[in-house]
Amino acid sequence: MEAVAVPSAATKPTVLRVAAFCGSLRKDSWHRGLIRAAEELCEESIPGLQIDHVDISGLPPLNTDLETDDGEGFPPDVEAFRDRVRAADCFLFASPEYNYSITGTLKNALDWGSRGKKPCWADRAAAIVCAGGTFGGARASLHLRQVGVFLDLHFINKPELHVRGYEDPPKFDAHGNLIHAETRERLMQVLLSLQAFALRLQPKDK
Amino acid sequence: MEAVAVPSAATKPTVLRVAAFCGSLRKDSWHRGLIRAAEELCEESIPGLQIDHVDISGLPPLNTDLETDDGEGFPPDVEAFRDRVRAADCFLFASPEYNYSITGTLKNALDWGSRGKKPCWADRAAAIVCAGGTFGGARASLHLRQVGVFLDLHFINKPELHVRGYEDPPKFDAHGNLIHAETRERLMQVLLSLQAFALRLQPKDK
Amino acid sequence: MEAVAVPSAATKPTVLRVAAFCGSLRKDSWHRGLIRAAEELCEESIPGLQIDHVDISGLPPLNTDLETDDGEGFPPDVEAFRDRVRAADCFLFASPEYNYSITGTLKNALDWGSRGKKPCWADRAAAIVCAGGTFGGARASLHLRQVGVFLDLHFINKPELHVRGYEDPPKFDAHGNLIHAETRERLMQVLLSLQAFALRLQPKDK
Amino acid sequence: MEAVAVPSAATKPTVLRVAAFCGSLRKDSWHRGLIRAAEELCEESIPGLQIDHVDISGLPPLNTDLETDDGEGFPPDVEAFRDRVRAADCFLFASPEYNYSITGTLKNALDWGSRGKKPCWADRAAAIVCAGGTFGGARASLHLRQVGVFLDLHFINKPELHVRGYEDPPKFDAHGNLIHAETRERLMQVLLSLQAFALRLQPKDK
Repeated sequence: MEAVAVPSAATKPTVLRVAAFCGSLRKDSWHRGLIRAAEELCEESIPGLQIDHVDISGLPPLNTDLETDDGEGFPPDVEAFRDRVRAADCFLFASPEYNYSITGTLKNALDWGSRGKKPCWADRAAAIVCAGGTFGGARASLHLRQVGVFLDLHFINKPELHVRGYEDPPKFDAHGNLIHAETRERLMQVLLSLQAFALRLQPKDK
Repeated sequence: MEAVAVPSAATKPTVLRVAAFCGSLRKDSWHRGLIRAAEELCEESIPGLQIDHVDISGLPPLNTDLETDDGEGFPPDVEAFRDRVRAADCFLFASPEYNYSITGTLKNALDWGSRGKKPCWADRAAAIVCAGGTFGGARASLHLRQVGVFLDLHFINKPELHVRGYEDPPKFDAHGNLIHAETRERLMQVLLSLQAFALRLQPKDK
Repeated sequence: MEAVAVPSAATKPTVLRVAAFCGSLRKDSWHRGLIRAAEELCEESIPGLQIDHVDISGLPPLNTDLETDDGEGFPPDVEAFRDRVRAADCFLFASPEYNYSITGTLKNALDWGSRGKKPCWADRAAAIVCAGGTFGGARASLHLRQVGVFLDLHFINKPELHVRGYEDPPKFDAHGNLIHAETRERLMQVLLSLQAFALRLQPKDK
Repeated sequence: MEAVAVPSAATKPTVLRVAAFCGSLRKDSWHRGLIRAAEELCEESIPGLQIDHVDISGLPPLNTDLETDDGEGFPPDVEAFRDRVRAADCFLFASPEYNYSITGTLKNALDWGSRGKKPCWADRAAAIVCAGGTFGGARASLHLRQVGVFLDLHFINKPELHVRGYEDPPKFDAHGNLIHAETRERLMQVLLSLQAFALRLQPKDK
């Protein structure tokens, strides 16, 4: 993990950069709300984590005809996206469930990051948070985990956060803001687990 | 299946319209080649099937903010796509495997067809054909089947066509044309199985 | 489907035999309770369906060394099981979720039925009912559907019955009896959907 | 990972105990052969790994009625199995594919290890090796990975070993012995990857 910020002095704690991706394009998406809440939680309470929300809405649909330089050159937006992915220490996927799987938008981003010889995703820790109906997105998150096998992601297993968004009490307001304290606390536990797993995966000599 | 063309006379055979979708955007895609081969096979040898290749490359990324009329109105391209889906009697998915799952482009189309109250996909027979590396896309096709549970698709189980595109003898030429007679024959068997299953699912009184 | 009882006179309705399997061995299992409730519902209200609860608890663990006659002979219990499977018109799986998948006991039965040249499961309609915790067994049922692709089962897509057994109001009593009227009604809808799909898959000339 | 043997002196290398499980009961099983080959490879070339082949063929089918002490007591064979699992530092699953999923025998063992309050599997590294037909067991290994999410296993992602057992050149002899040098080398790489991942997951202060 070459992107890990090595502290120059023993007193400076490692801050891990968490690239966060929202699988929904809706303005008031619950999943954007989950990422905003994660940003707030990290700023307030987890000094060792910093969320970098990477907007994937502008990526073109993956088409290998757009690649240049024998598959090592990409459209500018894709290059910028890939740089942000590569610079991250670990990943947070806010992944809605559409028809029992992940969204096309998220899959498109995952696939762009997998192209070429320079790996973007490989060998980093990752976590998934979902909000949905009866099952809170549990089926989609299992598809995402399967994609992660090939991308060489190391997902945390526990805790899982599958928010049942339609059940009382309300979890989100009309703008997708997370307003439910218990869910916020569960999100906090996901972030702490991601941090612990990312640190554990770092080389021992650091 | 209200879209089934009921023959006006006993001598006229039912021709089933097969909406076909290519999950790859590449010009010389093997999966386009599989659809072209399916078109040829139907024209030459299966009078009861007619392929309607539905281009999904121009669909916008699914964003429910683009929906109007309480979720029943869609952008023009999406409306046109949904009409073609609804008019079909059954479906053929030429589905590449990207990172152990289906492509974002195909998922996006599946999801647009699932929106609103008027079902586009429901209760129709479907088949999947893939071409890929070592496993020929077998993992992606299982994800597509899971999506189909919610869409209410009835996939044929056998035969499965997962073409190992990189193994000798060559299966496709440089333009993605299917040039391997045995694979062509296997594709033929998929189409016949799809036809038989679609007919079997039709109401008995027809 | 050679096992379908063809009525000798037009007035006699077809009664479909539904082989039912319980994935749990526990005496007071909710899944046994679901099968008992299905038996009652069919006796009371669905004259065209008859449940045949096939006990799979005594099957030996699958070991192909136990097979004789070039893989066409099986231990007596397995032969008896296979005969019951083959005699059925369709299938009902009461399938608990253990660790995000189906139970070893159910998998073992499915596998014994798949051996040899005479197919036991092939080309029949099937339905799954589950009861579990937060997700009611939804993940296990998707694994069962994947197994069904190779067995050539045709699962109904809707409705799905994933009972959240630990939530109020109580769904089962201490002996696993289904005591919740709404869940009973949902089970009824599953059985009617299974019946309709099995009839639809029958040859047209019957 | 409390079971890790902490070396008493700096010169003594850590030897990780790898509990290995064979999903097949057949005497001449390829999967037993893979475990035997792994034992040989570790003895010959990987001083830091020691295979402990845990026989799961005698475990009773999981039935929670067999549990005592409020779910914390188990039949003697199960207790012995659970002790061996808990004592391991990491896991190797030799997992055949039956009908697109893992075997009932393997699932049964996984489930017994998941019962009670004292976790048997949790938080250990794991690897899967399969041998099969066209796809070499790739679909089963993905089901096993999904089970591992709940069990809290950390599977290595690469390399994957899915041996196509029926293709030339022969991979196994009639007794299931691995006789193919290239596959043996690939198995070696799986073991080294498992070792590296298990060490990486160990607490840093060791």
